[in-house]
Amino acid sequence: MMQRLNIGLIGSGFMGRCHVHALRNAAPTFDLPLAPSLELLADVDAATAAKAAKALGFRRSTGDWRELVVDPAVDLVEITTPNVLHKPIALAAIAAGKPVYCEKPLAPSAADAKEMADAAEAAGVKTQVGFNYLKNPLVVLAREIVASGEIGEVIRFRGIHDEDYMSDPLTPWSWRLDPAGGHGAVADIGSHITSIARHVVGPIEAVCGQVRTIIPRRPAAPGSRETRPVEVDDQAQAIVRFANGADGTIEASWVAAGRKLTLTFEVTGTKGTVFLDFERMNELQLFTRDQPRGRTGFKTILTGPEHPFYASICPAAGHHIGFNDMKTIEVRGLIVGLAGGPPPSPDFREAWEIQRVVDAIVRSSREGRWVKISEI
Amino acid sequence: MMQRLNIGLIGSGFMGRCHVHALRNAAPTFDLPLAPSLELLADVDAATAAKAAKALGFRRSTGDWRELVVDPAVDLVEITTPNVLHKPIALAAIAAGKPVYCEKPLAPSAADAKEMADAAEAAGVKTQVGFNYLKNPLVVLAREIVASGEIGEVIRFRGIHDEDYMSDPLTPWSWRLDPAGGHGAVADIGSHITSIARHVVGPIEAVCGQVRTIIPRRPAAPGSRETRPVEVDDQAQAIVRFANGADGTIEASWVAAGRKLTLTFEVTGTKGTVFLDFERMNELQLFTRDQPRGRTGFKTILTGPEHPFYASICPAAGHHIGFNDMKTIEVRGLIVGLAGGPPPSPDFREAWEIQRVVDAIVRSSREGRWVKISEI
Amino acid sequence: MMQRLNIGLIGSGFMGRCHVHALRNAAPTFDLPLAPSLELLADVDAATAAKAAKALGFRRSTGDWRELVVDPAVDLVEITTPNVLHKPIALAAIAAGKPVYCEKPLAPSAADAKEMADAAEAAGVKTQVGFNYLKNPLVVLAREIVASGEIGEVIRFRGIHDEDYMSDPLTPWSWRLDPAGGHGAVADIGSHITSIARHVVGPIEAVCGQVRTIIPRRPAAPGSRETRPVEVDDQAQAIVRFANGADGTIEASWVAAGRKLTLTFEVTGTKGTVFLDFERMNELQLFTRDQPRGRTGFKTILTGPEHPFYASICPAAGHHIGFNDMKTIEVRGLIVGLAGGPPPSPDFREAWEIQRVVDAIVRSSREGRWVKISEI
Amino acid sequence: MMQRLNIGLIGSGFMGRCHVHALRNAAPTFDLPLAPSLELLADVDAATAAKAAKALGFRRSTGDWRELVVDPAVDLVEITTPNVLHKPIALAAIAAGKPVYCEKPLAPSAADAKEMADAAEAAGVKTQVGFNYLKNPLVVLAREIVASGEIGEVIRFRGIHDEDYMSDPLTPWSWRLDPAGGHGAVADIGSHITSIARHVVGPIEAVCGQVRTIIPRRPAAPGSRETRPVEVDDQAQAIVRFANGADGTIEASWVAAGRKLTLTFEVTGTKGTVFLDFERMNELQLFTRDQPRGRTGFKTILTGPEHPFYASICPAAGHHIGFNDMKTIEVRGLIVGLAGGPPPSPDFREAWEIQRVVDAIVRSSREGRWVKISEI
Repeated sequence: MMQRLNIGLIGSGFMGRCHVHALRNAAPTFDLPLAPSLELLADVDAATAAKAAKALGFRRSTGDWRELVVDPAVDLVEITTPNVLHKPIALAAIAAGKPVYCEKPLAPSAADAKEMADAAEAAGVKTQVGFNYLKNPLVVLAREIVASGEIGEVIRFRGIHDEDYMSDPLTPWSWRLDPAGGHGAVADIGSHITSIARHVVGPIEAVCGQVRTIIPRRPAAPGSRETRPVEVDDQAQAIVRFANGADGTIEASWVAAGRKLTLTFEVTGTKGTVFLDFERMNELQLFTRDQPRGRTGFKTILTGPEHPFYASICPAAGHHIGFNDMKTIEVRGLIVGLAGGPPPSPDFREAWEIQRVVDAIVRSSREGRWVKISEI
Repeated sequence: MMQRLNIGLIGSGFMGRCHVHALRNAAPTFDLPLAPSLELLADVDAATAAKAAKALGFRRSTGDWRELVVDPAVDLVEITTPNVLHKPIALAAIAAGKPVYCEKPLAPSAADAKEMADAAEAAGVKTQVGFNYLKNPLVVLAREIVASGEIGEVIRFRGIHDEDYMSDPLTPWSWRLDPAGGHGAVADIGSHITSIARHVVGPIEAVCGQVRTIIPRRPAAPGSRETRPVEVDDQAQAIVRFANGADGTIEASWVAAGRKLTLTFEVTGTKGTVFLDFERMNELQLFTRDQPRGRTGFKTILTGPEHPFYASICPAAGHHIGFNDMKTIEVRGLIVGLAGGPPPSPDFREAWEIQRVVDAIVRSSREGRWVKISEI
Repeated sequence: MMQRLNIGLIGSGFMGRCHVHALRNAAPTFDLPLAPSLELLADVDAATAAKAAKALGFRRSTGDWRELVVDPAVDLVEITTPNVLHKPIALAAIAAGKPVYCEKPLAPSAADAKEMADAAEAAGVKTQVGFNYLKNPLVVLAREIVASGEIGEVIRFRGIHDEDYMSDPLTPWSWRLDPAGGHGAVADIGSHITSIARHVVGPIEAVCGQVRTIIPRRPAAPGSRETRPVEVDDQAQAIVRFANGADGTIEASWVAAGRKLTLTFEVTGTKGTVFLDFERMNELQLFTRDQPRGRTGFKTILTGPEHPFYASICPAAGHHIGFNDMKTIEVRGLIVGLAGGPPPSPDFREAWEIQRVVDAIVRSSREGRWVKISEI
Repeated sequence: MMQRLNIGLIGSGFMGRCHVHALRNAAPTFDLPLAPSLELLADVDAATAAKAAKALGFRRSTGDWRELVVDPAVDLVEITTPNVLHKPIALAAIAAGKPVYCEKPLAPSAADAKEMADAAEAAGVKTQVGFNYLKNPLVVLAREIVASGEIGEVIRFRGIHDEDYMSDPLTPWSWRLDPAGGHGAVADIGSHITSIARHVVGPIEAVCGQVRTIIPRRPAAPGSRETRPVEVDDQAQAIVRFANGADGTIEASWVAAGRKLTLTFEVTGTKGTVFLDFERMNELQLFTRDQPRGRTGFKTILTGPEHPFYASICPAAGHHIGFNDMKTIEVRGLIVGLAGGPPPSPDFREAWEIQRVVDAIVRSSREGRWVKISEI
């Protein structure tokens, strides 16, 4: 009988459900030593929590996350609330000595993220942040290809995360636009492409960016005639410099009409190039210079059982993993880490590093100058 | 508390695990009225079954499927064994009055499939066959587009299912090559594209085909020097005529080097065209004639929450469903059907119709002539 | 000073202009020994011919092709008339001892084509037929790859030529629909894909096809209310067998909504696959089995200076040749041949072989049976 | 009889030949009023010029361009020399009152370009600069789509020009690397994407860029062991601001392994997006928000006869124009302009504006700050 890992989840929106799906599947899919068990769900009030707990299969529920983080039956605290709540909850959970699995971006600011990372490390508590796109087997493969020198030394990175979920000016104001929760597109999805940049190429040293609010006011609520000003960015663009000497660009937009998950990156090396677009997340493009004359070209590698994690999900190449599978892989790493394996990743420390880049882009834009990450 | 649906599963290979994954997720993902419960697992012998039961989370296990099909605690019999066993197991389950969820192809021959469909209908037992690719939301969308007349009247269908899992001549003989289990590629994957042809366009009336064994002998076992003759086809090609007057082609190969899930179909209508390739299973190509001058072209539709089932899996377009999600959607239909909703589909009767086409292609090839489906 | 090659061109429509473009460019582009000189243009009447001659830069014109073929100043007769006229003109030119460069399809029937090929050979006259798609450097590359064994032995060919220039039912009746000129889509463009099948894989032995008229009546003239019956096919599909043992399919349609130049072919070998789609005519897809584990995939080869003819047109890979460049390459082969180099190709003999396949598909469809090419 | 336009061409390398091809074809293809006539060719010395004149079909030749620009028989001076010579030649031609058609980039620096533009305007001499990619019918279409408001107001531009012709460190030093001729990749191809940015979106106001030399030394000559330092950039990246308020990025690299003509741009508007990649130069991607629910997506528009210039080159959509066709279209505009039609474009004034952006990127990189174009 597998040992149980009792989950306390805060938040039951889309990401909450996504966590539950991953918790349900990670252990059997990957034959893990701990079986997550849905112990306690917290939400904005008792009634909401009770209803969601029933739907999602949690044993108990509460309208107060403060109860959850100190509940003795809870082994792991998971945070899928609006960003503004990540910090107080995480600090409380850490104070209670519980490991924390928090959604991204970790905090409204790098300073907040640092406080959280420091606290976790001081308390010896394990943490993980939900940068799930890092778990795409082909991102892992890209990192492997870069690290192995297959494409030579990295000379350039180009990273984009474009979606269009905020492109309709009638999409109303929501917590994503609350400046108390942090920046806009550059934080919400710019953090994803930044996480990939760091994961695949390495630390970023300096940035020069421009961020912009495209839609200055939005309906205060769905269908409302009243409007509310938007104080966060809708799109961001930056040139960046990596510590290893490579140059790069990072862009993000949530008003990129027609783009649904244009999370793409290209790493150019002295001997080759690797490219991935999440709208075709099962295809990696690889070019290397060592090809026979007249037979050179980019190769389209479909995710297959030789790539990390895939074989457990699907035994045949080209049969596709999907969005939820990446989350299941993420939970796998977390459970392995909690069970004594390699530490979960990315942790709060790494999430702070990501947030520093995001903050640096915004500061750079405000001050019209290059900003070193060390300034943040 | 949700009502339980006790599962008796026979077979714990890849497809068995795939069923378990879908059973685990269908009810919570789609908020269904019945909760599948892993009651009893059968496999080739007691030890194998016991081990798999533990790994997959079944309550009990047995080395004899005959026990399983009559076990009073079992509400639903699921068959993921080699093809040759589908019929005896299904008939026994039907005789015991249990609904049956069987993998494809349903049976070694159309005659067998008919016997199974007749038995199920006579017994009033619900059935479903695992043609999971039909559950891709974009296949459902394609069917909707065709049925609605958006592309006019169908004049042509082109269907292909190419993979390369048997293309290496050193891949050893296995049950897939056992003629007692039916035909080769034309049955194993040709049945998939045939299921789509019927689902999207309608009944097929006649076929003229050619099937061929490319690799005449294979190692008797992995790494063995001894070889064994291959008696089934490796690739098949047919021209077909639909009852509604459309013409078509159907092709299948499991020796198509480099093709991993080239399951593609194109439906040409008098006013437009729709195309899907499962290697990009989240992209439907749609052309309609009613476009402004100088602005005409195929549109790439990414699966999104407006398409069937997707919103329950993932709320944002372009974020991808994967292979396992299609199976979860399949199980959703089954549970809805067992709970009194629309009957599960495709059922044994439809699987027989599919098998008739497969058998007709093979007979046509052997006899060098057009064969009407009504001959089979 | 380059030696002149005096051209006599019959027909000044699109294809006539296309020939003139190629004649203008072939010698300087490829540094050829003969300079085509626009001597004499024939068209339906003297006025039309005179006007076109002026526009296209011909020295003289005539309303009677019979004059042209015997004109002593004409070194080469080029035929770009409606199909029905190819045979009488070519036979007259051959009788006058002139080499002939004729558009495809060569003749309304294989019998006609044979008569033309026999006459040319008897007279020792060089001929070339305008199957210009064979001149795409990537088709030449595909042939090279197949011939060299890079993809092993050919086991399957899939060929398609789909366009939609006749898909609008209001497109009026025209000479393309005149049964006196031969068959419909299967001849007009089916001959192209057949030419590629033979060029890349080899002779075809037998076919079983179905051809169909989709739009039974069309306006008798542009905008006319009067309609005229269509007696030729709009789409065709066939399974074929090659002499070397490979199986294949050949399809053609001029009513394939949205398809503009979907001239595609895929050659599957025992060790690899090669694929080309003319809508992306500068990209060849190549898969070979000899790739490192986890790094396998189709390679996209862009036309470049290592491929035949390209360097003379454009020195940098990926910069694209276009439709007219293929015709220029075609004329290059013709001039080289007339100047004593390797014989122009494909010649009338090869065009007859292509036409036999086309005729066999139609006969097969009419008689509902496999037809051997040797029957035609 | 068409009036002649006597051409004096300086330079007979690839670009010289490319001009000759376009001169040969523009008038007949587009039925223009002036027929370019190859009058006089200049090259580095008399022998080289004489040989090239014979091969290319020029009447006369000279080893001294100074003779050419004042030759009374020359109606138009064309410059395809290394960049460093553009200015002295152009100024001399202008002084002689001749129109000038010069290759890009126009000059080593914006200051030089300004001097040239001023001189031409003062002399009332017409000019054109060879930014041939602007002549792709789909670039014209993109501009039309943006200008018409079909995608709303422009909020973002992303432009890339990546190639890999200098990515091999053994590629020797050449005039492209001579700092006297101007900057490196940012000028050689960065000017192309800048020309498109201005053409499609409008004037750029400020930039912040980083340029880098990747390969610091190269063989002094082909195969030489001696090396020579590289003083110009190999890659460049910039964030930019347009005068109309849109943000953007511009990138260029000639060491982007595997990229052959990755000249891509994406224009995001408030209501849609348009995208083009020159490696698929006959496909424009267009997204607009006004699509029916469940049927939204990017549309792939193939170049066709409804688009500018295409019908004269090829009457059927999807049949592809190539690299040389763009140059022919460029020459068409020039001839129309010289014959009294709309002025040729882009002219020296526009080429200066492009050069200012290029220079600003380099200065921005050197000074580590945003640079306004008005500073240049």
